[in-house]
Amino acid sequence: MVTGMMHPMQGMQASPILTSAHKIAIAGLGLIGGSLARRLVEQGRYVVAWNHNDRPYRAATKLGIHCVESLEALATGKPDVLVLATPLRIIPDMLKALAPVWHPSITLSDVGSVKGMVRQQVEAAGLGRYYVGAHPMAGNEHSGFGASESALLDDALWAVTFDGTTDYSRLLTVADMICKGSDNRLIALDDATHDACAALISHMPHVVSTALSNQLVDSPDRNIALALSAGSWRDMTRVSLTDPGRTRAMVVEDATNVEVLLRQMAVRLTAVADALHADDQTAVDSFFAAADPFRRFKAQERRDSPESGGDTVVGAMGSIELHDDSWREELLDSARRGEQITAFTTTHQASILTRAMS
Amino acid sequence: MVTGMMHPMQGMQASPILTSAHKIAIAGLGLIGGSLARRLVEQGRYVVAWNHNDRPYRAATKLGIHCVESLEALATGKPDVLVLATPLRIIPDMLKALAPVWHPSITLSDVGSVKGMVRQQVEAAGLGRYYVGAHPMAGNEHSGFGASESALLDDALWAVTFDGTTDYSRLLTVADMICKGSDNRLIALDDATHDACAALISHMPHVVSTALSNQLVDSPDRNIALALSAGSWRDMTRVSLTDPGRTRAMVVEDATNVEVLLRQMAVRLTAVADALHADDQTAVDSFFAAADPFRRFKAQERRDSPESGGDTVVGAMGSIELHDDSWREELLDSARRGEQITAFTTTHQASILTRAMS
Repeated sequence: MVTGMMHPMQGMQASPILTSAHKIAIAGLGLIGGSLARRLVEQGRYVVAWNHNDRPYRAATKLGIHCVESLEALATGKPDVLVLATPLRIIPDMLKALAPVWHPSITLSDVGSVKGMVRQQVEAAGLGRYYVGAHPMAGNEHSGFGASESALLDDALWAVTFDGTTDYSRLLTVADMICKGSDNRLIALDDATHDACAALISHMPHVVSTALSNQLVDSPDRNIALALSAGSWRDMTRVSLTDPGRTRAMVVEDATNVEVLLRQMAVRLTAVADALHADDQTAVDSFFAAADPFRRFKAQERRDSPESGGDTVVGAMGSIELHDDSWREELLDSARRGEQITAFTTTHQASILTRAMS
Repeated sequence: MVTGMMHPMQGMQASPILTSAHKIAIAGLGLIGGSLARRLVEQGRYVVAWNHNDRPYRAATKLGIHCVESLEALATGKPDVLVLATPLRIIPDMLKALAPVWHPSITLSDVGSVKGMVRQQVEAAGLGRYYVGAHPMAGNEHSGFGASESALLDDALWAVTFDGTTDYSRLLTVADMICKGSDNRLIALDDATHDACAALISHMPHVVSTALSNQLVDSPDRNIALALSAGSWRDMTRVSLTDPGRTRAMVVEDATNVEVLLRQMAVRLTAVADALHADDQTAVDSFFAAADPFRRFKAQERRDSPESGGDTVVGAMGSIELHDDSWREELLDSARRGEQITAFTTTHQASILTRAMS
């Protein structure tokens, strides 16, 4: 259950207008902000941008991005959506600067990889009622506007986050920016579920990868081990090589979830060690068989999309209905079923495709 | 220390002849055996092969591989080296068949991924004095002669293993097969060091990868987590998708080493969980900084070889001297320094290149 608080708009407006995010302001022209800005311009949206320095302005202006001299100018220009696309650590200062010049017609969003913390900061700045969280699943090891490109968001899935106070029509506005403005898909869910899932598939594995590298470094035979290492080692330690400062920040920002998952992983590894020690073949067999649903899912993915190595999304098409008093549970349940929203066709209906583990 | 037992040849023969492995018998035309056979034929070696069924014989014969009808015929043909290239589990039966027809001029080798267990089996069959272990660092997710190709061993490094009884001239024969016959490099070390290092960079990480996949499968939000997953998750779980039966066998065959390493990993992950719980920034920072030597090594590798993504070996060239009474320690120390043997230039001198973590 993610509802609980009754939003003032609920019940009042049975059918909000299917809003369009035509004018979009982006604070931060880095890898993600820059890529999103390029993509929105390509799709005909009006994009205004600010960056903490004006180095990317000449190149951005050439692409049709309207660069402004101050963060505040982004808000005073009354965009439909203002997207915070800076490192998480400077978001509180940005919110402090934006709050006094905020206009209620603007929907606030972001692209941060943790959602609960950002919402707390947004609420502390008094902007909670305007906020819909967003997190595009895209990125690489580079940074800066020079590394940004429209293609970075090709086929991207976004997580859009809400809580009990979220304004449904603002969620539709952000969904328009993502589905039509950026030609991407989305799932919508509460912050806690997002952050726990992100910890599971990214933040915790980054720690595991680093622990593997540390295990090598600490071995007196490290050069021999390195000489014997092949593809499995390279794959499993790749993310430990990326900027450790950025990884550390990501882990600390999602510390509670990462902590729980690391302890669960320690229990799993210890259980295998115990089974090997006891020569318990049944336990060892069960351990290796337990991943079968994931193996089947990936095998299906490869069959559906052999040429892309499984990166292109294929799945069963369908649609879901959403209701004014239950859209939160309906969106979360839909995400749990493996459904991804490709577009809102009306305010209360969305097209989906399904990719689920059986 | 890996010596201890005095070999009868030591001291007697100060300068053994630099032998060549001209005629090589391969038992098992699977992925590795087939690839090695193809490669040796390309380099002008005389290759005789046997397989548990004759399905690959037509294709192998066309390539110039001389196929025989029985395993015993491999030995009665008196090759310089006979290489066991079958799954580890059937090696004891093969050794039982080979022992009665063995000729002392034949050097026995293999391509198994664990070395201590194979040596025990070889000794149990009474063939210990003829044995030099070998393990090429090559492979992929496929199997069978149809998947084998000469290129599988391009740039491969082999581990060659000895114990206190190993005949140095037999080690030189196997080295000739690897360096000149297969155009590959080698490091030479004792079985225990090999198996502990293989556990560190492959067997244990395969368990970790599977544990990550199991963590996903066990989550009620698994479809959401899967939808949010990106490159880091794909890389870290890739090896969990490969044949779990083969992985299980590999892990069980090296159980003692894997057990120790899994417990060490559990301690590392728990320490990070504790540091996150206590908000101990110093401990978290130290954890992420500890992998820096590995990061520097990989960065150097990329600078040395940008076009290959680091896969092509570049390193400082040099040579090492080996002595009749201390070649075991000299070879192991050389491997520990990150040196890889490219060729024996005389019986007591080898060319090396060095790739070491600083």
